[in-house]
Amino acid sequence: MKVNAQHYRSIWADTELRSVNIIDQSQLPFTFSVVNIASLTQMIAAINQMQVRGAPLIGVAAAYGMALATTEGCSDQHLQISAKRLKNSRPTAVNLAWAVDGLLAHLMQLPDTARSLAAWQMAAAMADADIAQNRAIGSYGLTLLQALPQVRPIQILTHCNAGWLATVDIGTALAPVYAAHDAGIALHVWVDETRPRNQGASLTAWELAQHGVPYTVIADNTGGHLMQQGLVDVVIVGADRVTSQGDVCNKIGTYLKALAAYDNGVPFYAAVPSPTIDWQIASHAIAIENRHTDELAYITGSTASGLQTVRILAENTPVLNPAFDITPARLVNGIITEHGIFSPATLTDLKSKDA
Amino acid sequence: MKVNAQHYRSIWADTELRSVNIIDQSQLPFTFSVVNIASLTQMIAAINQMQVRGAPLIGVAAAYGMALATTEGCSDQHLQISAKRLKNSRPTAVNLAWAVDGLLAHLMQLPDTARSLAAWQMAAAMADADIAQNRAIGSYGLTLLQALPQVRPIQILTHCNAGWLATVDIGTALAPVYAAHDAGIALHVWVDETRPRNQGASLTAWELAQHGVPYTVIADNTGGHLMQQGLVDVVIVGADRVTSQGDVCNKIGTYLKALAAYDNGVPFYAAVPSPTIDWQIASHAIAIENRHTDELAYITGSTASGLQTVRILAENTPVLNPAFDITPARLVNGIITEHGIFSPATLTDLKSKDA
Repeated sequence: MKVNAQHYRSIWADTELRSVNIIDQSQLPFTFSVVNIASLTQMIAAINQMQVRGAPLIGVAAAYGMALATTEGCSDQHLQISAKRLKNSRPTAVNLAWAVDGLLAHLMQLPDTARSLAAWQMAAAMADADIAQNRAIGSYGLTLLQALPQVRPIQILTHCNAGWLATVDIGTALAPVYAAHDAGIALHVWVDETRPRNQGASLTAWELAQHGVPYTVIADNTGGHLMQQGLVDVVIVGADRVTSQGDVCNKIGTYLKALAAYDNGVPFYAAVPSPTIDWQIASHAIAIENRHTDELAYITGSTASGLQTVRILAENTPVLNPAFDITPARLVNGIITEHGIFSPATLTDLKSKDA
Repeated sequence: MKVNAQHYRSIWADTELRSVNIIDQSQLPFTFSVVNIASLTQMIAAINQMQVRGAPLIGVAAAYGMALATTEGCSDQHLQISAKRLKNSRPTAVNLAWAVDGLLAHLMQLPDTARSLAAWQMAAAMADADIAQNRAIGSYGLTLLQALPQVRPIQILTHCNAGWLATVDIGTALAPVYAAHDAGIALHVWVDETRPRNQGASLTAWELAQHGVPYTVIADNTGGHLMQQGLVDVVIVGADRVTSQGDVCNKIGTYLKALAAYDNGVPFYAAVPSPTIDWQIASHAIAIENRHTDELAYITGSTASGLQTVRILAENTPVLNPAFDITPARLVNGIITEHGIFSPATLTDLKSKDA
């Protein structure tokens, strides 16, 4: 999508296939900064520090991480260790393990000398496939939005960032928004701030503004009240994992919005590429990552003299910071995928298409 | 309660009855600062700027505001204008209008020369009555906590600050917590950060820490997940208004926690002094205050060189900032008052006691 009227992806390899460029999302919305990643270790740090984040982008970033690993060696052992290091960088995102395992299995079948080029080509293909998937998600989601009453601009609520910054391009939850906006449908997005990392306020707001989509930032506490007031027509979120039952593991707080949507008759959708669906796992078995307490204790903002990090809790305040929650399928109207929109009850129909 | 091992109220008159002292809650948890308020205009500013906040404390502060007004004149017209100015300082808090109207009606029956002393005496009596009420709320709430299984420390979730800082002393939602803690019952409080003003992180955490009650600060997004995990035994919040039907108007986000409590079989209580119950109003008629967008755009924190305010949204970000929401009675197990604990269905029994 556009940044300052120029088209960008969120990740791209240099033409010599020696390094990868990313948008440093930890600097947004204050500074638009492109960072060159030249080693596996740097990519692991970029994933762990959330310079790149969002399940689909993490998958592609991990694939490029494997490609970077091949620049340091192509032995079985080196690639297996590299894959393990990558998979440990963020424990919850299924796309990461999926991308790394798929790439590793393929490379293992090749002679050492063919592995590096193959890794770079596979990573590029994954990036292109991500975009194609998201375009299809947007297309299916568009039909959903078109079917809503349009007596006023369609009011969409989203949580966290599942826009193009969370993918290679276009986004998942925001793919229908961009598709509808580009089709001339009047709409407005309620953007949850999304504490503690403020991905909504920092990333979703920024990318919607760059694309010219009307939006309003709200505290995470506010969405339920807006739904009670009839000010939300549909909730669309992304997901880090979806179970075969249709349970949605997404950014912490999603479950609360799903409860409010259900209580007020507002449809609730998760938009995901099909690899986000984990056909094996039960929702109770999903490991929820507890992130560092500093994410609540400190916050970075802009001042007249540049960015500054301030402490907003008293020193030594006890904090618990789980990063995700699980919205049970009974609260989910549908999963928007690149193969169509599926209710939790019909989600297994997708499994055959996806296989 | 205690601050640095010394007992304080949140508001008290000086002995000459010419001014009032408040704890400047806008400086917590970083600086404990007592501010002297010497005029009605200063008190209105203190209420509007939320140096004093919390429905019960606002009521007493407004009563002291009327007492301060009498130091500038005691005519009918002056007191009527003063009452109107006070009531406009925060539109949602029923205690404010209740305190001001009650005091004004009484003063109007007195000769001008008797009004000033009477105003100071009435304000002091309201402060003492607030403490007595809160002690009774704590006593009834204690029976509730004692009845819970105590196989582990009782896990209480609260939203915003309805502790002693929100009252003159002891608090409302936290009155049962302090009563139980002082009775030797092991407990732990999950403290919602409470965006956008962070009253939970800044005030509730601070006062619990000062009193030695175990607590953990969480993002507002987190409570639902904790309830799904069985980590919350009871939710207790304060309220700015309760309707005769038992609908609870409280800090924005309360409704989301009530939904999660209901969904997980966790009991949900509001603890309020009975004047917080507005026997006249229907929930749909409660005016919800939209506060300034800067509350989301800026945040103040501590740095090595002192307190600093940083901007956490991009410039000119559209924001909506409603301050309260309404939790429907169907999600409320009970209202803890100074006269006992009432289910929404039996709340009208309290009306006769309260009359």
